[in-house]
Amino acid sequence: MEFERLSSIPTRTPRRFNSKQNGSKVNVALVGLGYWGPNLLRALFELPDVEVSYICDLDPDRLERFGRRYPSARPTRDFENLLADPHVDAVIIATPVFSHFGLASRALQSGKHVFVEKPLASTSAEAGELLELADSMDRAIMCGHTFLYSPAVREVKRIIQSGDLGEIYFISSSRVNLGLHQRDVSVVWDLGPHDFSILLYWMDEMPEWVGAVGRDSVVKGIPDVAFIDLGFPSGALSHIELSWLAPSKLRRTVVVGSQKMVVYDDSSSEPVRVFDSGVEYEDPETFGQYQLSYRTGDILSPKLDTTEPIITELTDFVQGVRQGVAPAGNPTLARNVVHLIEAAESSIEERGVPVQIDSPVAHTAR
Amino acid sequence: MEFERLSSIPTRTPRRFNSKQNGSKVNVALVGLGYWGPNLLRALFELPDVEVSYICDLDPDRLERFGRRYPSARPTRDFENLLADPHVDAVIIATPVFSHFGLASRALQSGKHVFVEKPLASTSAEAGELLELADSMDRAIMCGHTFLYSPAVREVKRIIQSGDLGEIYFISSSRVNLGLHQRDVSVVWDLGPHDFSILLYWMDEMPEWVGAVGRDSVVKGIPDVAFIDLGFPSGALSHIELSWLAPSKLRRTVVVGSQKMVVYDDSSSEPVRVFDSGVEYEDPETFGQYQLSYRTGDILSPKLDTTEPIITELTDFVQGVRQGVAPAGNPTLARNVVHLIEAAESSIEERGVPVQIDSPVAHTAR
Amino acid sequence: MEFERLSSIPTRTPRRFNSKQNGSKVNVALVGLGYWGPNLLRALFELPDVEVSYICDLDPDRLERFGRRYPSARPTRDFENLLADPHVDAVIIATPVFSHFGLASRALQSGKHVFVEKPLASTSAEAGELLELADSMDRAIMCGHTFLYSPAVREVKRIIQSGDLGEIYFISSSRVNLGLHQRDVSVVWDLGPHDFSILLYWMDEMPEWVGAVGRDSVVKGIPDVAFIDLGFPSGALSHIELSWLAPSKLRRTVVVGSQKMVVYDDSSSEPVRVFDSGVEYEDPETFGQYQLSYRTGDILSPKLDTTEPIITELTDFVQGVRQGVAPAGNPTLARNVVHLIEAAESSIEERGVPVQIDSPVAHTAR
Amino acid sequence: MEFERLSSIPTRTPRRFNSKQNGSKVNVALVGLGYWGPNLLRALFELPDVEVSYICDLDPDRLERFGRRYPSARPTRDFENLLADPHVDAVIIATPVFSHFGLASRALQSGKHVFVEKPLASTSAEAGELLELADSMDRAIMCGHTFLYSPAVREVKRIIQSGDLGEIYFISSSRVNLGLHQRDVSVVWDLGPHDFSILLYWMDEMPEWVGAVGRDSVVKGIPDVAFIDLGFPSGALSHIELSWLAPSKLRRTVVVGSQKMVVYDDSSSEPVRVFDSGVEYEDPETFGQYQLSYRTGDILSPKLDTTEPIITELTDFVQGVRQGVAPAGNPTLARNVVHLIEAAESSIEERGVPVQIDSPVAHTAR
Repeated sequence: MEFERLSSIPTRTPRRFNSKQNGSKVNVALVGLGYWGPNLLRALFELPDVEVSYICDLDPDRLERFGRRYPSARPTRDFENLLADPHVDAVIIATPVFSHFGLASRALQSGKHVFVEKPLASTSAEAGELLELADSMDRAIMCGHTFLYSPAVREVKRIIQSGDLGEIYFISSSRVNLGLHQRDVSVVWDLGPHDFSILLYWMDEMPEWVGAVGRDSVVKGIPDVAFIDLGFPSGALSHIELSWLAPSKLRRTVVVGSQKMVVYDDSSSEPVRVFDSGVEYEDPETFGQYQLSYRTGDILSPKLDTTEPIITELTDFVQGVRQGVAPAGNPTLARNVVHLIEAAESSIEERGVPVQIDSPVAHTAR
Repeated sequence: MEFERLSSIPTRTPRRFNSKQNGSKVNVALVGLGYWGPNLLRALFELPDVEVSYICDLDPDRLERFGRRYPSARPTRDFENLLADPHVDAVIIATPVFSHFGLASRALQSGKHVFVEKPLASTSAEAGELLELADSMDRAIMCGHTFLYSPAVREVKRIIQSGDLGEIYFISSSRVNLGLHQRDVSVVWDLGPHDFSILLYWMDEMPEWVGAVGRDSVVKGIPDVAFIDLGFPSGALSHIELSWLAPSKLRRTVVVGSQKMVVYDDSSSEPVRVFDSGVEYEDPETFGQYQLSYRTGDILSPKLDTTEPIITELTDFVQGVRQGVAPAGNPTLARNVVHLIEAAESSIEERGVPVQIDSPVAHTAR
Repeated sequence: MEFERLSSIPTRTPRRFNSKQNGSKVNVALVGLGYWGPNLLRALFELPDVEVSYICDLDPDRLERFGRRYPSARPTRDFENLLADPHVDAVIIATPVFSHFGLASRALQSGKHVFVEKPLASTSAEAGELLELADSMDRAIMCGHTFLYSPAVREVKRIIQSGDLGEIYFISSSRVNLGLHQRDVSVVWDLGPHDFSILLYWMDEMPEWVGAVGRDSVVKGIPDVAFIDLGFPSGALSHIELSWLAPSKLRRTVVVGSQKMVVYDDSSSEPVRVFDSGVEYEDPETFGQYQLSYRTGDILSPKLDTTEPIITELTDFVQGVRQGVAPAGNPTLARNVVHLIEAAESSIEERGVPVQIDSPVAHTAR
Repeated sequence: MEFERLSSIPTRTPRRFNSKQNGSKVNVALVGLGYWGPNLLRALFELPDVEVSYICDLDPDRLERFGRRYPSARPTRDFENLLADPHVDAVIIATPVFSHFGLASRALQSGKHVFVEKPLASTSAEAGELLELADSMDRAIMCGHTFLYSPAVREVKRIIQSGDLGEIYFISSSRVNLGLHQRDVSVVWDLGPHDFSILLYWMDEMPEWVGAVGRDSVVKGIPDVAFIDLGFPSGALSHIELSWLAPSKLRRTVVVGSQKMVVYDDSSSEPVRVFDSGVEYEDPETFGQYQLSYRTGDILSPKLDTTEPIITELTDFVQGVRQGVAPAGNPTLARNVVHLIEAAESSIEERGVPVQIDSPVAHTAR
């Protein structure tokens, strides 16, 4: 019943693993060359201690195209090929969501460490199974929640942890733009993982309930807009607007605390802005009326470092492979993200009736 | 069960009324000199065919201050005084919400026409009673939903009515700023009337259900942030974010249609922007897959006229007094706004479970 | 040849004056009820220790209108009337520029303290005469450079004085909008006083030269756009764009220093923004190449106080009247502003050839 | 004395050239792999009818790096190598400015068509010589003024040509950001070519005079900020602010016409905005005063096509090579850009005294 607090896990406990000795390169295979795979591929080639030995896709054209660009990586259409190669330490999976569970579990069973693009799996049950499998096979499993490596997201996390914001009253977020509709999954599965992962990272607690409404405006059966509310045990409320239908791109999250407020806007040249604003509440002494006073102070846009999130993320995975364990908290968080997507989808189907999140971490024995 | 369509009421049917003959001035009394009253007072003095004969407030200081500024208006603390004066045609009420019903019904019973600031009353039952009373007394009752006289809001209405937007998929709105907490009512009662009235005006239909969550962050028992969803019979979805806790003022409404999209931003120098953007959906011929294509075109900020809404609004009321009937649709809309506030508050109390709007216009016989 | 440094004048030296004893109200007459006069009037009525005894204008309609609004002020069309009244301590002049010298010198000669709207006079010679006259009559003369009382302008002054910006490299300013063309004077006379006064206040030195080009786009003979460059003894360069022809209002000044940069934008909700950005220059040790490194750091929008500049300004004048001397530096600055306007106009006539500012402060013995 | 009007040259007159027969690929060599060269290289590889046979740079590291990325292009440090190869049709030069003349004239003398990055040469005399040499050798010379292929710049050109703006009153432009200082040339040589080329393209006339002031704030002798004014025969005025020292990137050009105004902002998501705003001037009938009225109307952000300028530009060059002549107007415009840079630099040295542009096109016989 406890939510594994991301920030409270101080050190990683290395275990016995088959991973490479220090010094040698980590050998990886990339599976899936669609929308996101090529970004991972490019980034992997920028890492000094990684060797990409295979690229795998069902589409021969893509295989040929990327094979030409990266001649040192062996192209293959057969996933079993790379699993059978004992030199391959880890498999990076960037295929459509429905295939994540099948591919990842096969890879784990074959003794590979696994990196899966978000969301981790199509159901939280499958996500939980993957975590258990990784555990029993003593292999690392990590999900590509890249935003957790964004300097802006980490700066907000730092500010929250510092206590500067005071109590978090609520977090309101909009993630909208025109397109790109997914054919098989709703906007909640497509864009939700970003906000859910950021929320879990910042709040370090699992919501108690999720309510959501949505509409399948363009393609029947596939919601392309959703308004999601989440309630946290601490009392914090959160609202997320997701949409593939919008006149202009918007990525804006407001964190309202009792002491300060933060605006995180990914598409701005100043992605984090800290407002020294708040309301002071003065309790009436005896029977008098309470007093409110509003405080607006300086606004600060802190300088952020400019590391590329995908590079930091993959570096973290590679280090995890060496140490034989995924970055602390990541697998649980990834599983919980799937849980929240499921809950939001359920609530949408029930036209907004909130869904209780009963036992968010039942599957995590680790 | 029918929703009285604002736009479908072509002409006003004048009835027998005690109102003044054409040519002479309409004689009004203003009640309430708090936050909004002085604005009404200033505007009333700018109208050529209005005479303000009384200003009324319980606070002697305010009475004295405004008495000095407007020496032609008689100051009084006694509401009955002005009701007793047969020269007074109409009473303008700008007092706290809880007193609206009492004052307005007394004024109607005394044969006065009545203008009440928004929201019309504290409950939809009271609002309905006021409508019935006005009807039985043959007097006009109008609620000060000033935004319906904003050139920007009317331009969006015009665009929607023209059909240019196609089907309305959804409307998403944010109305937030730091302060000012009301002592007795929630942010839904304070800011909700703006968005609810605009929505009803634009959509010309009453929602079927309302779901909302909120939080009383600062003062226990008084929600200062609320996230509200509404579902319309046409299929349109709407979302409204209301808050007294925000790092900066935001008034932004996005209307997403199947053909075009509109952004209405009250605090911008270009309050209406029309985006010629959309998604084309092509049905598969037989068993093939559907095709989506995205279209982004010109963006237009139409020139808006610069009339001051409060002036147009009061002119409309004065004209109504002359004709013996309130502007078409206004009382019903005002009553329905109260109904939506009640529904949103109920849903907040039930932690987000949506509330059905059964018989939105049961009380409107007219 | 010396420029009287505004910031280096530590205290005011009170002289013998006819002004009122402490405690009693300062008695003023306002002359000119056109565009700006009513603002001054409204503000004067908000000051607790001021009594407006006269309002004066040639237009009977205006006199009547404002006479009704402010019945305690005597309306008059005859300037000599109020000069003759021994109870009048000070005259506030808000008439067209060409009349400033005549009215102000008459008032000074009559023993009144004088507040003149900007610019102080039509020529720097006349401006100098006014200063001398005030000096010889032992009366205060002050020019209404309201921007010097703007909290944002003063915050930038504070930052500059603190040395945080390092050396001031250059200051670039745009002050443009659509309208309002003046009938008798160019955009330099109309908008220039704002920027010139701010520059002199910030830089605390008089430019050595002024170059300018302009165009009389709409009305022949009256430039409606001007691009002005100024060179300061410290090496600082300044550029000012002034225009009555612009698609949208812009008031933006950038101060680039060697250590930090400041953006002052009067029309923004964050009028002052401090950028911790700069370029580090490293001298080559021997014959090697120099090194440059760019630094971009935090951005800060400091909280500004919200006092209304016109109130602070008039309070300063009233205090000056009591003490018998204008706020330190103000008259000289006002005279120098006229000097800069003249120089810019000369340069425009010579199609951009820069004009040397020979002896900027020859007239200021004080 | 005539300025070759870009828009008035209707068709290209093909001449006898050694260029390839239609159908076969144009064979090019790229010289210079510094800042911009790699962009050209990447774009050249995307063109279907181009073969890059050589890449040339003095730095062996760069040669090796890009050699690995583009194995089909032969790397060489010796410029003469590629000139000697008869298969090479054209040479693309992206080296520092000082070397443009030497390399381009050698290439022309060797019978190659030449594409030179902007600015064309270090002096207008050299630029003129290159044009003459290309003429006498019957080879195409083109300068890489990429902005002339930007969809936004072309849309503004289209609007100007349509006459919708009326008379062009003035054009005001800012192109500033923090960095990157050039070691050998001023900000005028670095950023000026962008604005000068755009101005010449839009205005289709050469300025009569140029005035400029600047400052070498950081590195002595190398101005890093410049304010430039230009006067056109049509009466249009233009102002350009260039700087490597700015708190934030700004690329904003305002074109003010008698009928409409346009804002072109390269860094905005709406790069072109057309304001239907203006001033109407009504001449007095007899001795009365003129009347001015201000008009503000719709604002339109036209949809722009999304072609990449560098691709269109190189396609134009390749087509020019096939036809044996550079895109009409380009060489003259490029030469005139150098002329304007020289004039601006002269004026800066003379502290702002404007420089007359005597015979802007003396060198262009063609």
